This record gives sequence, structure tokens and C-alpha cells, in this order.
Amino acid sequence: MTGPAPAWITPGDPDGPDFSVCALVQSQDRHERLVASFSRRGFSPETTEHLAADNRNGNRFDGYSWQRALLTRARGRYVIFCHDDIELIDQGQDDLLARLDDLTALDPGWSLAGIAGGRFRPKAHTRPMLSFHISDIYGQDRRRGAMPARVETLDECFIVMRRSRPVLPSLDLSGFHFYGPDLCLQAELQGGSAWAVDFHLRHHGRGTKGPSFADCRARFVAKYARIFPGRTLHCTTGMVTFPADGADEAGPSP
Amino acid sequence: MTGPAPAWITPGDPDGPDFSVCALVQSQDRHERLVASFSRRGFSPETTEHLAADNRNGNRFDGYSWQRALLTRARGRYVIFCHDDIELIDQGQDDLLARLDDLTALDPGWSLAGIAGGRFRPKAHTRPMLSFHISDIYGQDRRRGAMPARVETLDECFIVMRRSRPVLPSLDLSGFHFYGPDLCLQAELQGGSAWAVDFHLRHHGRGTKGPSFADCRARFVAKYARIFPGRTLHCTTGMVTFPADGADEAGPSP
Repeated sequence: MTGPAPAWITPGDPDGPDFSVCALVQSQDRHERLVASFSRRGFSPETTEHLAADNRNGNRFDGYSWQRALLTRARGRYVIFCHDDIELIDQGQDDLLARLDDLTALDPGWSLAGIAGGRFRPKAHTRPMLSFHISDIYGQDRRRGAMPARVETLDECFIVMRRSRPVLPSLDLSGFHFYGPDLCLQAELQGGSAWAVDFHLRHHGRGTKGPSFADCRARFVAKYARIFPGRTLHCTTGMVTFPADGADEAGPSP
Repeated sequence: MTGPAPAWITPGDPDGPDFSVCALVQSQDRHERLVASFSRRGFSPETTEHLAADNRNGNRFDGYSWQRALLTRARGRYVIFCHDDIELIDQGQDDLLARLDDLTALDPGWSLAGIAGGRFRPKAHTRPMLSFHISDIYGQDRRRGAMPARVETLDECFIVMRRSRPVLPSLDLSGFHFYGPDLCLQAELQGGSAWAVDFHLRHHGRGTKGPSFADCRARFVAKYARIFPGRTLHCTTGMVTFPADGADEAGPSP
């Protein structure tokens, strides 16, 4: 007796569409603006599928749980995880594909590509060194740093993942903050890398941190102080230091 | 102008079949024996798909690359990664589903479930403490330790992953050894857990380590000594110690 025929898999088997655009959606209006801007800028139904994590009627997903749920459904070669309040303006699909091709030539093993992050310097340091190109409430067409730049943190507004090399968020963190830096550190622990690339878009977000920010930050620090004692991270939301003794940041000095 | 309608995703969306049985296949004969044994033991075409990483004509995949490639194709709620030389004998689908349901009741957040591993004790220790139930070249129906047991290493012959909570192997390691322990450590860094459960099967493998074992072991130690200095792991292939100073195991003492 023999069983059913298996599906034989070889390396580099073809993928689905080029892009899965995954958004964490609280506002359908904002998301419709996002989808329309992608359509205007060359992301066609032939190359792009749109997936929406449905938080329209309350937070059924948080920042650490939605990528996992959408990744099991996404078929794209590149999976974009973004806020619902971004809008493409002067750059589009051809620009993004060109930036990602450039990045692949530079670092074939890249795992994550965002548009704003803190430079990769896995030691203690104090001088902020961010890289970004963005239009947001702080100004139009703002630039800082050279790109592409290898980073150790990424802003959550726009992060591209390769479906062939996925990175999953921490299971022991929750909330709506620090999940971009968490993804970068998980990529690093896996042996992969994260980069900021020059892909200009508008982020309509207000940038408010909210009352849960301090709590998310404390749990993020408590987790990673055990793994990276003494390291400093520069996030787009500010600096974070993991105490050298691995203890909680607010605890006593050694 | 609006764009295409997105797919709205909510938590707990239904999955595909119950099982994706993924094997790393060098020998088609051995794999046919595996598939036939699964069919005999209740894994039907309705509940189970078989995927085979095709190493029949040379090693196109290694132990660290094949899960990633097959996971993008797998549709099962549970994704089994196994050697091609296992065979189900007296236990089958109903037994495995029962063991996994028990495990979910015990630890709803489990990430990996294997059949043989080293108990979870994330400190230095010297006494081996393995848990398994297996028939192999060393004997029939061999048992050690109570199960289910939380583990920090798993034997690669049979590992179940939840597709909703995937764990990916290191990108900076390669070869055919230590990828089970690597998966367990990646799960732990993600904030998840690994368990050994009592699911009896036969592993026909010879258990030979081959000339590449020492090299794989050295690279595994060099990677994790930086993350877990001073920790000792008990693998089914022997004990591994990560030096306390994070240096290479063969280097000078501090």
C-alpha cells in the first residue's frame, strides 16, 4: 500500500504576486486613501493584493499579533506591513522594486526593509543616528542620513518583509509600540538584517505616543536587557538603553 | 478614485487541512514508506497534505533552509517537519491530535512539539535530562522522562509547528546538524516554547554524525555563546556548553 503523491518542492519555486500590502486598519476611510494611492502609483491588481487586519470595530489585533495572522494568507513575494494612515505621493511600484533590487545586490540576505530607522551599531552609544525620507506632520520631504542604511530599528509605518525569509514578532510582547524595533532584533537574532531604503511617502499619523507607551517600552526593555545587556537603540520614537546588568532599567545600579 | 477591495482578516480565520507533513527527502523509497505509514494510521487526504523537500539528486536544501521553503507552501494547521526515514507504527492521527490538544490545554502558547528532546533548564547544568518515546536502532519502545515536557532542544526526526505561530531557523547557520536545537532557541527568543510529547514512532536512521558534525557544532556554539553565555544544552546528540565569556568554546579561559 502506498499513500498519496507528495508535492515536491525545490529551492526558488515561483511565488505569487509581487506585493501583498498588509495594513493594520482602524479607519476604513484612511485605508481607502491608502489603497487608492497604491493603485495610482502602479500597484495593479496583477502585481498586488491588499490584506487588511480588521480593527475597524475595536483592537482585535495589536502590533505584535497582526503580521502573524496576515502572513499565513499573504501570497506576495514582498509583504508590506504598514499603518492605515500612509499615502503614496510621488513614488510608486517601480521605485520600490528598484530600491529592493538595489538592496538585494548590496545584501542578498536582507530580511526587512523600511523607510525610517536607527543605524545598526550593536554597542552602547549616545549620539542619535537616524536614516529616513518621509513627509509627515513634522514637514514635507524630510531627509536624514544616507540610504540604504543597515538599521537596528524601523518605524512601524512601512516595513517590507520577504515572504521567503519571514521574521515574526515577539510572542511575549504586546501593545502598539516598539514592534518595529522588535522585528529588527528578531531578524538579527535569526541571523538576518534590516535596512532603511529611500522610498518617499506621506505618513498622516499624529505621532502621539498615548498612555500605553511607557508600559510597552518597559516590557520591551525588560525582555531585551537579558539578551543585549548594555546596548543602546535609537528608535524614531526616541532612545532606549538596555541596562548592562540585564536588570530592569529602573532598577538599582550594579 | 478608489482601489480594489482588500481581503479583511480577523483573528482565528479558518485554516486549511489539519496537517502538512513536510519531509526532507533524500530517498524516495524511504519517503514512500513514510507516506504509506501515515495513510495507514489515519492521516487521510481530507486531513493531510504531503510536501517533500527534494534532495533526491543532491542536497539542494540543508537542515536550516528547507522549513522556510516548505512553510510558504504548507496550508495545514499543524506543519510536521520530519526526516524521510521515520515510520508510524502503533500511533496515528487521533493520537497526535489528542497529544497536541492536551499540550494546548497545558500551554496555549506552545510553538513547537517534538518527540525527543532535552528538558528546559536555561542555566548551566551537567546532568543529562532527556525526554523521549521512540523505537530506533538502539531499541524498541524506548522511553525516558515524563511527557509532555518543556524542552530546550528537540531531535530533528519529528517536529510539529503551528502554522499560526511559525518559528524559523537561523539564517546564519547551515548544514544538517543542530537545526532542532536552533529552532527551540529561536522559539525561546521569540517568547514561545518547545515541548516533547508522547507520540511513538520508528526512526530508521543510523544515527551517524558524519564528518561535518564537529563543524556544525562549532558554528552553533559560536552563535549562541554570544546570546546565552554560560548555558548548557542537552541534545539527543550530546551535551553542548556555551562558554560563559561568550568566546569560542575552544578559546582561552577568561
